[in-house]
Amino acid sequence: MTRRLAVIGGDAGGMSAAAQARRTDPSLEIVALEKSEWTSYSACGIPYVVSGVIDSIDELVARSPQEHRDRSRIDVRTRHEVEAIDVAAGRLDVRDHGHARTIQVPFDLLLLGMGARPIRPDVPGVDLPEVHGVQTLADAASLLRRAEASECRNVVVVGAGYIGLEMAEAFVIRGARVTVVERGAHVMRTLDMEMAAPIEAAMRRIGIDLRLGVDVTGFEPGTVHTSVGSLPADVIVLGLGVEPNADLAAAAGIELGVRGAVHVNRRQETSVAGVYAAGDCAESWHIVSQRPVHVALGTVANRQGRVAGTNLGGGYATFPGVVGTAITKVCSTEVARTGLTEHEATTAGFAFVSATIDSTTIAGYLPDAPAVTVKSLAERGSGRLLGAQIVGGQGAAKRIDVFATALHAGFTAQEVFDLDLSYAPPYSPLWDPITVSAKALLAVL
Amino acid sequence: MTRRLAVIGGDAGGMSAAAQARRTDPSLEIVALEKSEWTSYSACGIPYVVSGVIDSIDELVARSPQEHRDRSRIDVRTRHEVEAIDVAAGRLDVRDHGHARTIQVPFDLLLLGMGARPIRPDVPGVDLPEVHGVQTLADAASLLRRAEASECRNVVVVGAGYIGLEMAEAFVIRGARVTVVERGAHVMRTLDMEMAAPIEAAMRRIGIDLRLGVDVTGFEPGTVHTSVGSLPADVIVLGLGVEPNADLAAAAGIELGVRGAVHVNRRQETSVAGVYAAGDCAESWHIVSQRPVHVALGTVANRQGRVAGTNLGGGYATFPGVVGTAITKVCSTEVARTGLTEHEATTAGFAFVSATIDSTTIAGYLPDAPAVTVKSLAERGSGRLLGAQIVGGQGAAKRIDVFATALHAGFTAQEVFDLDLSYAPPYSPLWDPITVSAKALLAVL
Repeated sequence: MTRRLAVIGGDAGGMSAAAQARRTDPSLEIVALEKSEWTSYSACGIPYVVSGVIDSIDELVARSPQEHRDRSRIDVRTRHEVEAIDVAAGRLDVRDHGHARTIQVPFDLLLLGMGARPIRPDVPGVDLPEVHGVQTLADAASLLRRAEASECRNVVVVGAGYIGLEMAEAFVIRGARVTVVERGAHVMRTLDMEMAAPIEAAMRRIGIDLRLGVDVTGFEPGTVHTSVGSLPADVIVLGLGVEPNADLAAAAGIELGVRGAVHVNRRQETSVAGVYAAGDCAESWHIVSQRPVHVALGTVANRQGRVAGTNLGGGYATFPGVVGTAITKVCSTEVARTGLTEHEATTAGFAFVSATIDSTTIAGYLPDAPAVTVKSLAERGSGRLLGAQIVGGQGAAKRIDVFATALHAGFTAQEVFDLDLSYAPPYSPLWDPITVSAKALLAVL
Repeated sequence: MTRRLAVIGGDAGGMSAAAQARRTDPSLEIVALEKSEWTSYSACGIPYVVSGVIDSIDELVARSPQEHRDRSRIDVRTRHEVEAIDVAAGRLDVRDHGHARTIQVPFDLLLLGMGARPIRPDVPGVDLPEVHGVQTLADAASLLRRAEASECRNVVVVGAGYIGLEMAEAFVIRGARVTVVERGAHVMRTLDMEMAAPIEAAMRRIGIDLRLGVDVTGFEPGTVHTSVGSLPADVIVLGLGVEPNADLAAAAGIELGVRGAVHVNRRQETSVAGVYAAGDCAESWHIVSQRPVHVALGTVANRQGRVAGTNLGGGYATFPGVVGTAITKVCSTEVARTGLTEHEATTAGFAFVSATIDSTTIAGYLPDAPAVTVKSLAERGSGRLLGAQIVGGQGAAKRIDVFATALHAGFTAQEVFDLDLSYAPPYSPLWDPITVSAKALLAVL
């Protein structure tokens, strides 16, 4: 008897699970239910559509519904929104928006890939059409319309995290006057404070009006109200991060975990046998802190989806976890982090030392060698690397992957120092900034 | 009683050992003997002086003799050439070129840092002044004079390794007509053949006349004779690699090892107690092949020097070894390698699989995403990573450091695939080329 896998959500987590389940078990019947019209798209690319660097939203689609049908025999149904899960009966209630009807979809196996939604501040006016998330291709289309409109003069971005900063720059490129309002004392709260200063300087250099320590108190058409006065706003962008879309799971009695994400084991299985979760709606395991975390990143979603799909198809796979790697760019300033920040290391209970060094990304004697600052943390006693943060010019940020690999390996500062890293003048000083950083850690350990 | 450390050679290996010995033991008397006028310079920077990218040879000097005297209390004697070592007596015979006399320098501890010399083909005319090595700042000065001379029209580079290709490009930038003559069937013999093709294409695109499978048979003023005819040559550059300067050590009865380099243990001590060696004249330990190798790189020289210096100062340190990382640039084509090539893996006795993948260094939907090719090798059975090679556009080559770190960690292809690498559209496709490469390895394993 053919078994049916139902997949809720047609983006990275859901569709990578579906495709992998298909590869693992060719006999499986697979139906994927997606409430929008799109599948498998790059939300991370939205700022580049808004800025005009990418010509069309279509370029963000890695695989269309039809491609999933053709290549993986997945019955993708778009504009189908799951409204309830009955895990005991093995049945979904699904709203078919195209035909304005509600249908029931039975399943033997279920994959939750509902993703995440932008965090919306609890203030008046937050549901106005001027207030945009940056999550779906519908968001992208709507933001693009606004960006291209000639009356788009003033843009207010609420929150100075990754997507907030990327969107701020995108609207600057479009010629808008951009204000970023951030409640905290510095931008990029996933970095330690002193690493944020050069990013703030870079933002101000391109004319972004950055307001730190300011609360948003409400929205009105054309205006954002804050704790220190009102700002004109033709477009308002939410950059406060995301929260898991796990309401359906909670309503079905499936256990939630950290930050309300669906709790999963290492095989991506939820508290209900046969029900798996992957991507932004699910927990991840943090290898350094040895705690569950909620990470909303396309890479993690795809990896978890592959693991879930293998298990759903009858194979065996586990998700090894994350080390907390992230990277972005603000104008020509590159920013990256991995592992734990000081705050995160403290929260996780580690005693640690830290060291911050300045270097260049290429040999210092070459003209215009870009500057780079590297901060790294190591555990007291053991000397084990706990995390690193990099801010600098061209060639700076991707170096974070070496630290990430060292975290996977559980390397000490000495082992990082000993790495046989590549050297040639156009690529690095004789001592790579990573090596210099490890040496500085050794000096304080 | 004060003990005296004598250091032979004033570049990376020698002076980093001297400086580290000083840090470790402030009471040590340290004398460093250097036959040229320079200390602690970047030979890797010579192509950038010749091309004119760097204004002056002085910029390549990291620390002058006077700086070593002032900062580290090292008695640096330039234009002092050691002619013989008497290990039993603890005494050096030294030619003081400045005063045209020979002196004797007693020592309690000795550091051999004689470096390496360009390999010279055994053909007539090889000692002509037109035939240049690319090793010392005297070489740099002489090459720069030639490059700036208006009669420098035709340049022949013998050998298509790292330095050969970098010098070829430097002379192209200077406006010369450049021919590269290589005995082998492809350039960059430290890469597998198929990875060399895009490098050869890049060379030809900038007008380099590349002659593969051609032997040099002799030199005459103005002419290079080859197995397929003669080439006009105002300047001839040796790019055949280097060999260790170990004759002094051999004559003193100190054991030599692989490729004639001074044999050392993990503390950089030679076969004679109290005599250490570091840098291009010494062996290194290859972590992947678990064999001694000869590596002539500034990074390795500095690392070995630090280790030797710590031990010479009475401390304890070991050199963990290399994984064979190297990187270069030919025009805008980036090239890097680490670990073992197919040939090296075979020689070391490994059974392996390999996989080669094509990707882009940034998200494929961004305009002008540079192409990248990654080849990686893993051991059959264990799946352990053995090596990787990368050729591609901007952002390609420095990724080799992730593979290098994975080799230090002894990671399998699965562990490389599982790495939480950074992702954002301006930095990488959703699946980093490294991840794609590991996935391809897993598919063949």
